[in-house]
Amino acid sequence: MISKKMENMVANSSAIRAMFEEGNRLAAKYGAENVFDFSLGNPNVPAPEAVKKAMIEILSEEDPIVLHGYTNSNAGYEDVRQAVADSLNERFGTNFASRNITMTVGAAGGLNVILKSLLNPGDEVVVFAPYFGEYRSYADNYDGVIVEISPDTETFQPKLDEFEKKLSPKTKAVIVNTPNNPTGVVYSEETIQKLATILEKKQKEFGTEIYLISDEPYRELAYDGVEVPYLTKYYANTVVGYSFSKSLSLPGERIGYLVIPDEVADSEKLNAAANVATRILGFVNAPTLQQKVVKACLNEKTDISYYDRNRETLYNGLKELGFECIKPEGAFYLFVKSPVADEKEFCNTAKKYNILIVPGSSFGCPGYVRMAYCVAYETIVNALPKFAELAREYR
Amino acid sequence: MISKKMENMVANSSAIRAMFEEGNRLAAKYGAENVFDFSLGNPNVPAPEAVKKAMIEILSEEDPIVLHGYTNSNAGYEDVRQAVADSLNERFGTNFASRNITMTVGAAGGLNVILKSLLNPGDEVVVFAPYFGEYRSYADNYDGVIVEISPDTETFQPKLDEFEKKLSPKTKAVIVNTPNNPTGVVYSEETIQKLATILEKKQKEFGTEIYLISDEPYRELAYDGVEVPYLTKYYANTVVGYSFSKSLSLPGERIGYLVIPDEVADSEKLNAAANVATRILGFVNAPTLQQKVVKACLNEKTDISYYDRNRETLYNGLKELGFECIKPEGAFYLFVKSPVADEKEFCNTAKKYNILIVPGSSFGCPGYVRMAYCVAYETIVNALPKFAELAREYR
Repeated sequence: MISKKMENMVANSSAIRAMFEEGNRLAAKYGAENVFDFSLGNPNVPAPEAVKKAMIEILSEEDPIVLHGYTNSNAGYEDVRQAVADSLNERFGTNFASRNITMTVGAAGGLNVILKSLLNPGDEVVVFAPYFGEYRSYADNYDGVIVEISPDTETFQPKLDEFEKKLSPKTKAVIVNTPNNPTGVVYSEETIQKLATILEKKQKEFGTEIYLISDEPYRELAYDGVEVPYLTKYYANTVVGYSFSKSLSLPGERIGYLVIPDEVADSEKLNAAANVATRILGFVNAPTLQQKVVKACLNEKTDISYYDRNRETLYNGLKELGFECIKPEGAFYLFVKSPVADEKEFCNTAKKYNILIVPGSSFGCPGYVRMAYCVAYETIVNALPKFAELAREYR
Repeated sequence: MISKKMENMVANSSAIRAMFEEGNRLAAKYGAENVFDFSLGNPNVPAPEAVKKAMIEILSEEDPIVLHGYTNSNAGYEDVRQAVADSLNERFGTNFASRNITMTVGAAGGLNVILKSLLNPGDEVVVFAPYFGEYRSYADNYDGVIVEISPDTETFQPKLDEFEKKLSPKTKAVIVNTPNNPTGVVYSEETIQKLATILEKKQKEFGTEIYLISDEPYRELAYDGVEVPYLTKYYANTVVGYSFSKSLSLPGERIGYLVIPDEVADSEKLNAAANVATRILGFVNAPTLQQKVVKACLNEKTDISYYDRNRETLYNGLKELGFECIKPEGAFYLFVKSPVADEKEFCNTAKKYNILIVPGSSFGCPGYVRMAYCVAYETIVNALPKFAELAREYR
C-alpha cells in the first residue's frame, strides 16, 4: 500500500540496515573495540567548545519567543543571512547580500530545496561518478533524471570530454561535490575553469540555462593547504549548498545554507522559489537556535588535524599493504581499488576480519570501496593488521 | 527558468509577503503598538522555563559527538522514540512501541514524510474545508490530488454526507486537523466515530486502504476541559502527525513526530518508508538536540490560560459588536463571518484600521476571515475599539 516509488527504496534501505545490524552483531560478539567500522560519515571530532558556549549564551540571553519562533522569512533570520554573506565575501572576495542566502536543514535540505525550485519532470541532472548516492533520490523526488558521467579512475577529476557530449537541451543542473565524497579528491581550478567553459558554450548552443550546484559539506576539510576553488567565481549560474555538519561537527542538528547569487539567471525568482520550497517541503525554516549558533561560530573550525592524522595513517598503511588508492586532499574518505572486480565480494570478505566498508557501486563506481576515516585513531591502528590479513587473501 | 510548478507558488507567496510588508509599513508609520496583527500563528507564550533548563542541562552533560551526531536510525534516537510511545500509551491507553514513532521536522515535515510514503501520482487526498492551505502544496509535492469537502458553516464539523459521496477508489488519504486551524473547532467523538464507520465501509466497498492522517499541532491547546479524541482508537488505518511547535512554543526548532501504529495496513513497510522518506527528502533526522529536549519535557505544557483569556476577550468583544463567529474550543484562531460576501474586501477595509486578518479563501472557505489570537492581550484590548469602527462601516 506504500507508494510505488518507495517500494524499491525501502528494499535498498533494508540492505543498508542489514549492514548496520551486522556491525551491531559483530560488536556484540567480538566487542566494539574489535570491530573496524569504516562505513559511516558521522564526524567523530566533537563540535568546537565555542559551539557549546554559544548555545548556552544564546539560550541564556535571547527572548525565547523570538529565538524559538518561526522566522519572518522562511529563508531564515535576516541577521544570520547577512552574517553568512559577509563571511563568504570576506573569505572569497564575493559580493553576496542577505537576499542571496537561504538557511537550510543541512546540505541535504538545501539540495532538495534547489532541485524542487528548478526541476520540471524529465529534466536532466548531471553527476560525475563516483558521487554521493543520495543525489539519485533527490533528483527523483522532483522527477528529474540522473545522467552519470563515468569515472576517471586515474585522477578522479571529472571526465570533461564525456561531460561535454552528454549535456543536452534537457540538462537543467550539474551537481559537483568537492572535496568529494567518496574519493576525497578536490577538483582543481583548471578542472573548474574547463567545466565552466563547456557549460557556457552549451548554454549558448542550446539557448538554455544550466545550473551548476556545488554541494560543499566538506569545504573546510582540506589538507596540505590545498585550495578549494569557490565556484560562483568561475561560472555565473552557480548555486552553492553548504552544511555545518562537518565544519562544526553538527550533522544531527541539520543546519546549512544555499547561496543563490545575483549573477544566476532569474536570481530573484529563484531565491523566491527557494523560500517557498523551504516552506512547502515541510522544512518551514532551518532550526532557529542553530541559525543563531552558526552565526556566532562562523569563524570556528573543527580540529582537522585529527582527521589528517587518520588520513595519513590509513592511506600509508594501506599503500604499504599493496592496496591501490588515490591520496585524498579533503573530506574524510579513502576510495580504494578492490583487489577483485566485484567489490561487493571484497566487502564481504573484509567482514570476516570485522572490517566494515561500503561498495563503490553505491557511488556509481563499482570496483572500488569507500572507507570513512572519521573514526578513532586507535581503530585505524588496530585495523591495519586486519587489513594485512585481508590483503593476504588476494595475493 | 524556475520549475513550472513553482511559478504559481512564487506568485502566491508574493501576496503573503506583500501582506507581511504591509504590516511592517503600517508599524513604521503608526508605531507597532498601533498595528493589530492577527495574521500569524506564531505562539507568543514563551517556551516553559523547563525547556531552557533541559537544553542547558543536556548541552552540559551529554557527549557532543553523540548529541549533535546523525542518529543511528533516520527515525530518531531510540530512547526518545520509546519515551514518546510510553507517554502516549499512558495518556491515551494506546499500545505503541518505539518502532511506531518517527521523529520529524515538525508536523509539516511529518506530513510530507507520510504523503511521500503513501502517494502515487493521481491519488486523492480528502480535506474538510476550512483547512490549513499548505495541505494543497504537501499533496501536490507528490502529485496527489486534493479533494475538498465543503464546509458546514453551522458547526464547522466535517460534512459527512458529502464526504461519503466523494470517497473513491482513488482516495488514498484523508487529512483531519482537530483542534482545527482556522476554526478552533474540536471534532466531536461522535463525528470521529461516524467518519471511521464511513471509511471502514468504503474500504470494504473499494477493496482499498484509506489512511486517515490526523494533523495534531494543536492537540494540547483545548479549552473548557474539552476532550480531543485520540484517533488511532477509532480507526485502524490512522497515522498521527504531531508537533511540539505550539505545546512547547518551539515552532522555529522544527520538532515533532509521526505515529504509525501496528494496526495500520502494511505497518512495517510504512514505518520503513517513513524512515527512508525522512532521509531522502533531506530532513535526514529531526534536529538531535531538540529530540532530547522534548524527551525531557514530555510532561511540560505551555501556559494555555494566556491564550484562553485572549480567546474569551476577542470572542466576546466581537460578538458584542455584532460579528458572527463560532466559539473555538481549541487552537488559537477565531473564524469570523465576513459582513460582506467578498471577505478579501473586508480584509482590505480592516487594514484602514490597522487590523491585519487573513481571508478564508486561503483555507478553502471564502466569506470568512481568520484571526490568530496568539498575540499580546493588550493588542486585543486595544484592537476592540478599532473593530467597533470597522463594524460601523457595515451597519
